[in-house]
Amino acid sequence: MPEANAGSTFSLQAIGHVRSPYQKTGQVPKGLGAKHEVEGTLEILPQFEDGLTDIEGFSHLIVLWLFDRAQGFELLGTPPSDNRAHGVFATRSPRRPNPIGLTIVELLDRQGRSLRVRGVDMLDGTPALDIKPYLSNVAPEKLRRGWLADAEAREQNEHKG
Amino acid sequence: MPEANAGSTFSLQAIGHVRSPYQKTGQVPKGLGAKHEVEGTLEILPQFEDGLTDIEGFSHLIVLWLFDRAQGFELLGTPPSDNRAHGVFATRSPRRPNPIGLTIVELLDRQGRSLRVRGVDMLDGTPALDIKPYLSNVAPEKLRRGWLADAEAREQNEHKG
Repeated sequence: MPEANAGSTFSLQAIGHVRSPYQKTGQVPKGLGAKHEVEGTLEILPQFEDGLTDIEGFSHLIVLWLFDRAQGFELLGTPPSDNRAHGVFATRSPRRPNPIGLTIVELLDRQGRSLRVRGVDMLDGTPALDIKPYLSNVAPEKLRRGWLADAEAREQNEHKG
Repeated sequence: MPEANAGSTFSLQAIGHVRSPYQKTGQVPKGLGAKHEVEGTLEILPQFEDGLTDIEGFSHLIVLWLFDRAQGFELLGTPPSDNRAHGVFATRSPRRPNPIGLTIVELLDRQGRSLRVRGVDMLDGTPALDIKPYLSNVAPEKLRRGWLADAEAREQNEHKG
């Protein structure tokens, strides 16, 4: 069982940048029921344009990006969608050991190395690290959503009460 | 519009390692219809264990990991599932500008900082970079799968012919 690269660090570089209407963290919708319907653009750097070949055929893309304005990390934190603390690997907190964000966007249009997408929740100027095609869903009857489902149920009960 | 960190590099470190039955790339099922039902373990490093708090509630996890045995990248390549070349951002190729892999696994059991999961397609010893809860699906009627759907249709026609 190799321990390849244990303890080493690995370097990444931007493949492009996100153009988004959000300039500050406070502008990004957060918490239960937050909708991410906002349009933005992924501007890919010229040297990576060939990597976009045939991307137009996919309706949805997985974008990996860098939380470049987050500082340090926190293993336990209280997310905007709950009043209880959870482990960072059970949340989408930006303060992660490796500050990589993931967003599923809908691809609306491609013009050269510019991808117009719906569903951005990144800040303007965010470095994009990777794009992958979104290929399949988890069978809905098999999906459990942990503390988030609990928090939603509590909120619904409070609204009823 | 800030160009934060354009041109810089960013460092990552392993949060743990994947234990998988696959020792070599050739052992991982690939191509059209490849099933990833194999069980493995995510062994998280002791200093990150608190970050796993409440992860048991989620049925599926997104694992980000490092293609630590891939060399360089290729912007256009022919994937095992097709006989035509596609852009790297429209495929799951390991030879990416930033060699980050993404796998959706089903969480079967947690023992301390060891997560037993189903659906590994990583090599044994692969560095894990991040874990995120899998929260939602794309509406199936909105999902288009680009060249992959075309390749599947061609293969089906060949089998019929």
